[in-house]
Amino acid sequence: MIIVMSSQAKEEDINRVISKVTGLGLKIHLSEGKFRTIIGVIGDKKLIAGLPVEVMPGVEKVVSVTESYKLVSRDFKHENSVVDVDGVLIGGERLVIMAGPCAVESREQLLESAFAVKKGGAQFLRGGAYKPRTSPYSFQGLEEKGLEMLAEAREATGLKIVTEVVDVQSVEVVREYADVLQIGARNMQNFQLLKAAGKAGKPVLLKRGLAATINEWLNAAEYIMNEGNYNVIFCERGIRTFEDYTRNTLDLSAVAALKLISHLPVIVDPSHGTGRWQLVCPMARAAIATGADGLMIEVHPNPAEALSDGQQSLTPENFMKLTSEVAAIAVPMGRKLL
Amino acid sequence: MIIVMSSQAKEEDINRVISKVTGLGLKIHLSEGKFRTIIGVIGDKKLIAGLPVEVMPGVEKVVSVTESYKLVSRDFKHENSVVDVDGVLIGGERLVIMAGPCAVESREQLLESAFAVKKGGAQFLRGGAYKPRTSPYSFQGLEEKGLEMLAEAREATGLKIVTEVVDVQSVEVVREYADVLQIGARNMQNFQLLKAAGKAGKPVLLKRGLAATINEWLNAAEYIMNEGNYNVIFCERGIRTFEDYTRNTLDLSAVAALKLISHLPVIVDPSHGTGRWQLVCPMARAAIATGADGLMIEVHPNPAEALSDGQQSLTPENFMKLTSEVAAIAVPMGRKLL
Amino acid sequence: MIIVMSSQAKEEDINRVISKVTGLGLKIHLSEGKFRTIIGVIGDKKLIAGLPVEVMPGVEKVVSVTESYKLVSRDFKHENSVVDVDGVLIGGERLVIMAGPCAVESREQLLESAFAVKKGGAQFLRGGAYKPRTSPYSFQGLEEKGLEMLAEAREATGLKIVTEVVDVQSVEVVREYADVLQIGARNMQNFQLLKAAGKAGKPVLLKRGLAATINEWLNAAEYIMNEGNYNVIFCERGIRTFEDYTRNTLDLSAVAALKLISHLPVIVDPSHGTGRWQLVCPMARAAIATGADGLMIEVHPNPAEALSDGQQSLTPENFMKLTSEVAAIAVPMGRKLL
Amino acid sequence: MIIVMSSQAKEEDINRVISKVTGLGLKIHLSEGKFRTIIGVIGDKKLIAGLPVEVMPGVEKVVSVTESYKLVSRDFKHENSVVDVDGVLIGGERLVIMAGPCAVESREQLLESAFAVKKGGAQFLRGGAYKPRTSPYSFQGLEEKGLEMLAEAREATGLKIVTEVVDVQSVEVVREYADVLQIGARNMQNFQLLKAAGKAGKPVLLKRGLAATINEWLNAAEYIMNEGNYNVIFCERGIRTFEDYTRNTLDLSAVAALKLISHLPVIVDPSHGTGRWQLVCPMARAAIATGADGLMIEVHPNPAEALSDGQQSLTPENFMKLTSEVAAIAVPMGRKLL
Repeated sequence: MIIVMSSQAKEEDINRVISKVTGLGLKIHLSEGKFRTIIGVIGDKKLIAGLPVEVMPGVEKVVSVTESYKLVSRDFKHENSVVDVDGVLIGGERLVIMAGPCAVESREQLLESAFAVKKGGAQFLRGGAYKPRTSPYSFQGLEEKGLEMLAEAREATGLKIVTEVVDVQSVEVVREYADVLQIGARNMQNFQLLKAAGKAGKPVLLKRGLAATINEWLNAAEYIMNEGNYNVIFCERGIRTFEDYTRNTLDLSAVAALKLISHLPVIVDPSHGTGRWQLVCPMARAAIATGADGLMIEVHPNPAEALSDGQQSLTPENFMKLTSEVAAIAVPMGRKLL
Repeated sequence: MIIVMSSQAKEEDINRVISKVTGLGLKIHLSEGKFRTIIGVIGDKKLIAGLPVEVMPGVEKVVSVTESYKLVSRDFKHENSVVDVDGVLIGGERLVIMAGPCAVESREQLLESAFAVKKGGAQFLRGGAYKPRTSPYSFQGLEEKGLEMLAEAREATGLKIVTEVVDVQSVEVVREYADVLQIGARNMQNFQLLKAAGKAGKPVLLKRGLAATINEWLNAAEYIMNEGNYNVIFCERGIRTFEDYTRNTLDLSAVAALKLISHLPVIVDPSHGTGRWQLVCPMARAAIATGADGLMIEVHPNPAEALSDGQQSLTPENFMKLTSEVAAIAVPMGRKLL
Repeated sequence: MIIVMSSQAKEEDINRVISKVTGLGLKIHLSEGKFRTIIGVIGDKKLIAGLPVEVMPGVEKVVSVTESYKLVSRDFKHENSVVDVDGVLIGGERLVIMAGPCAVESREQLLESAFAVKKGGAQFLRGGAYKPRTSPYSFQGLEEKGLEMLAEAREATGLKIVTEVVDVQSVEVVREYADVLQIGARNMQNFQLLKAAGKAGKPVLLKRGLAATINEWLNAAEYIMNEGNYNVIFCERGIRTFEDYTRNTLDLSAVAALKLISHLPVIVDPSHGTGRWQLVCPMARAAIATGADGLMIEVHPNPAEALSDGQQSLTPENFMKLTSEVAAIAVPMGRKLL
Repeated sequence: MIIVMSSQAKEEDINRVISKVTGLGLKIHLSEGKFRTIIGVIGDKKLIAGLPVEVMPGVEKVVSVTESYKLVSRDFKHENSVVDVDGVLIGGERLVIMAGPCAVESREQLLESAFAVKKGGAQFLRGGAYKPRTSPYSFQGLEEKGLEMLAEAREATGLKIVTEVVDVQSVEVVREYADVLQIGARNMQNFQLLKAAGKAGKPVLLKRGLAATINEWLNAAEYIMNEGNYNVIFCERGIRTFEDYTRNTLDLSAVAALKLISHLPVIVDPSHGTGRWQLVCPMARAAIATGADGLMIEVHPNPAEALSDGQQSLTPENFMKLTSEVAAIAVPMGRKLL
């Protein structure tokens, strides 16, 4: 941490800061310029975290030198992490595709979707049994019944299951059925849920919050890893901006940034990211070209009948077209799809 | 709902949409222009909610005519609602001030703060016992011990207590101690928590999410009211934008908008809204001039010692200056403070 | 400027940076910590401005200590500046009101508006003769004919004229007619125009860009002042965010921030800031309570006939209501309106 | 245009709107529901554009059915447009690469860059002779001297020249030297400049504004085309969001969207889009995978010496790596690079 003192700071101001910092057992390095004094703080960043130096008299600016996360960082682990979901690897040479309907609506719809996405090349079936919805009057999901249907679809197809957990209470039941627990965008900073997911002993797919910075996202993953669960997968799904042609602005730079900063695998959801089915396929190709480890795609046997997010769902035919195009992009990336 | 068909739509496309809509028991009104057909849908909006007309062939655009919320709306209740917290009214002629430290740190800090804010004119003591923090390594709050200290401060000062509830599990314990349950920005769309707060039988202060639209905020309040709890207070606390001089961008237009759309009381938190103590007082005055019913202000007996958010906390002296300036602005607004 | 070297930086990396910096005639202050070296750079910031230290090997982060603007800053001039427009003062005890139609549409419309806003208490008539419009097919303004009408309205009413200058070529003609040159939001970083306005010898009203940070806005004013024209007035008019209920998000914190950082007067345009006439009056009151020196308000004798921005224009009756409410808020602020 | 009347609208309100609309020579289609009346307006959209129906009594909402642009639209021209720059095609099978330094700094720097980017596979040399800079004290470009150096580099290498035109006055001189005129992000809604560029008789590269919606960008291109110049190339360069790890948020969805809506070619600038050289190569691959027709890349022989934007510039070695990776992605896209 670097403390920049104001050009108007008095000597007593500088001494007060120094005694405060050293009183915590931290060391300082003093740099006295012509116009202003700069105080470098050296030592355990946890000690510094709680220190509001910014409001001390004479302080102009405080600059953090190191980040608050540790376990998610490439400084902590240099090689890429590969998450093993009962034999299906996320982050390895082979790309993973998670596909299925936004919400589990019925046994028929789910099974039909499951067979379709398996045929199209997916290794995971996605589908929400618990649905966070803006309005209390919208369809809220089939809950445990939906989980049972997901398990049945797994039996029938051999696909792994990824499904959302929306609160601490349901972690127990969801972990019984799911292979991967999904934390949704609206819960990215639901810290109790992050901790509970960290303790649940299953891999966690962590979607980016609608207005979360990359730094906050990394810290959210740190909450999960701090509980001893190192099987975390990031999922970029678009951020909220002024642009309203798309539902969100898919931020693929964040994928490239995560690959620099962190060792964890990253997948991309272009369905929520764009909100328009016509843009899903180009953005899926772009995600893989950026270096993403996989995709999450909404597929519905009949989008025009879907109870939620029909506008961004692909038909099974369009999904097959997508996987074939993605497979072609995988080649120059040194990856493969099937 | 209005369905605008594309200029390329075929007759079968139009017929398919019509039969779909009328099949749900809804009525339509057909408007055939020279270039395109427009289909008006008439009937219960809940039936329409799940219908993804956007993806049907030939459909260009779908426009919603009515909003998805009801109980929060001035159409539902024309006069302003006043929330009665054991005799302290929120939304009446008298403005309310909720003040205190960001986090409960110790018995001494809290009691000192409580007496200071009472002296300054506050009716409510605020202070977090459970703290949602970006990093797992930051101070996370004193939890139930903090709640006990809040109760003790209530005993000692007569102030009402408003404190945050961060998950469904702790609603039970927080409602034992608090007079008003606060839902924080990061939980504004934690729908399980909204429902639990709705059932808890205590007034709920609902902070706006960091990237929540006014429409989403109204729907979040609808979740609480839909559980039978009509004592909801909105709290504007800034939204996330590109501007980085301030911690957030305090959106006072949202206060004016809520006053148009809804009957519920609205208060403003300029401390989190700006993140800089120098801006708190001008924005507090502005909030009252906009028509807000009260303020939530961070006050710390010694901001430079605060374990969180010291940079945005007022000293007791500055808080007294704030309430005196706010009292002066209240006069032309036909309100009063003390 | 502070240069934070990476924990992996080699000694040669550190030496390279040092020799680079000292080669420019700058001094350095070295701080060697256990894990990383920090290099403070001391000297003329203009020399440092062009130095891309960030890309030199071993550099982790570069932190700027001082701002790039100077003349706009309160460090340069401590007391508030008051801009004198032929006897009407902007930034003094008396608040200024600039009001009138968005665009000059006709002689009748303009004169009717001028008399109405004068009656309501305005000292300035606003009205665009040159209109920047998103679509080339929208009404583009009456140009010089519009300027003549503005001059006639000044003759008839004694109001001062503020009108927009949209390009360098028209500065000459606009300065002939206008008392204050307005730089619109879309031109806030049209640097040639800023320089031309700086040379035009008339006060300049500088609107904030749609996505301009406060820092960029201050630098834009610096461009004007750097040409020797110190009569600059800031005008906050809302920034672009994800919120779509309002046309823009009026950022009143920016007003409070400017008052801290700069000595220049600040006015607020709640008409463009909100885009909804129902919100104009509450936000006008709020602006004054924040500490703004005046307001710019759209008034149209018949908003439903306006060729642009009718939705945000006040009728003359609503404008009189606004000025009377604003006058009441002015009192506790130690200001007056009329 | 569809006019939704409020449920409280009186019959006279409805009649007023109808007579207003029909008075302009437009036709209406009336749809009287149980709760509200909806009025469809049929006819020339230019007539409707200036009509502020929103403020008429009883009107709740106005919905635009058609867009305000025409010439840029795929409805106007179905096949992709290919811009021919003296034999180099933009928008054809072969991808185009525009590369070079941010600013022209010296003859040596420019020639060295030109030979390097030609060797790396570029067909265009980019480099700013006029530089829009946030601070008046930053390096502002070599102006006409810089243009002469660009022309010399063209002679020496055979590369085409793309360079920025920052105001109407310099269009004349820039068009003498440049093969393609670039309109920068800050000038995307400098409508006088758009018109001047439209008349200059050279292809125009139109960068997206920092906070411009896709719709505004399309309309800006319409300004150029409306002057008879159909050789317009879009360039996505990132939008301004809350994320601060990257300099901007590169919005590749906008590329996919433009490809749906418009027939014009689209290129991508990942250098400004990300502001970090480490992210340029992954985002360049992603742009091509999205369907972009080319790239604009900052290359500097010695980024650590660059007078502007060094942090986002590639070395010649990294540029060659980029073009080879992009060439590999081009194959599955059915494109080629060299």
